[in-house]
Amino acid sequence: MFTAQPIGFIHSPYHQTSAIPKGPGAKHDAEGIIQMLREYEAGLTDIEGFSHLYVLWEFDRSEGFDLVAHPPTDSGRPHGVFSTRSPRRPNPIGLTVVELLGRDGGSLRVRGVDMLDGTPVLDIKPYLSSVPAEKLNRGWVTGAENHRAS
Amino acid sequence: MFTAQPIGFIHSPYHQTSAIPKGPGAKHDAEGIIQMLREYEAGLTDIEGFSHLYVLWEFDRSEGFDLVAHPPTDSGRPHGVFSTRSPRRPNPIGLTVVELLGRDGGSLRVRGVDMLDGTPVLDIKPYLSSVPAEKLNRGWVTGAENHRAS
Repeated sequence: MFTAQPIGFIHSPYHQTSAIPKGPGAKHDAEGIIQMLREYEAGLTDIEGFSHLYVLWEFDRSEGFDLVAHPPTDSGRPHGVFSTRSPRRPNPIGLTVVELLGRDGGSLRVRGVDMLDGTPVLDIKPYLSSVPAEKLNRGWVTGAENHRAS
Repeated sequence: MFTAQPIGFIHSPYHQTSAIPKGPGAKHDAEGIIQMLREYEAGLTDIEGFSHLYVLWEFDRSEGFDLVAHPPTDSGRPHGVFSTRSPRRPNPIGLTVVELLGRDGGSLRVRGVDMLDGTPVLDIKPYLSSVPAEKLNRGWVTGAENHRAS
């Protein structure tokens, strides 16, 4: 196994967890900057061509984990942690799909950040394909949405 | 920073890297099993409702990294590592979207594996939404596909 190392850090408008929009109905259109560490900048070559990126990052202000999470999205009902996006995970890795708005050297301007300001970035990957909406089942999340809408 | 820990392991039909279909045209419809370690089984509660999952895993048979990769998909042309899915990354984390076919206790039967047999799993997350195809630009990958098709 390996020890995670930051390749860069996020500049985000969110300084407190409570400020981040949560839940399936939440809009994630906040803009932010991924600032790469200088030694990894060359790894961004050709990234400008992609409209969307996967960003893997560390929940660095979360400690420990729970096997059962109680997402606010579903009024605190219990769900297995791997059925949720809870930060309290065995490996504290977050995953966000962002839209790439522009690049200036080692800085990527992106839309859709839901991380805290200063969050360490672990990896960036090109987003290449989607699961068609009609093939997607979203488990308890759909039920929670219907419950909130009713 | 944290040290990655396996939450389970993949049973896959692929025992050698050379056997894994590669490139954008490659079909990833191989079936496999994610076998969770017993102590993490409870974290799977309610996962049956999701049709697709993100699996984060370790490139455990890759050592070191390169900032510039030469993907076979594009006839070995150079691209920044973060513009590719190369296994030789600063943090050796792989990401695969799989279709969940069934669950038996701590075993998840999934379609779409592209990992080697025995690969350590780091995290599982529900796949909740897609980027619409018409909003997606796939960078150098589209060029490589056109090049191969012509």
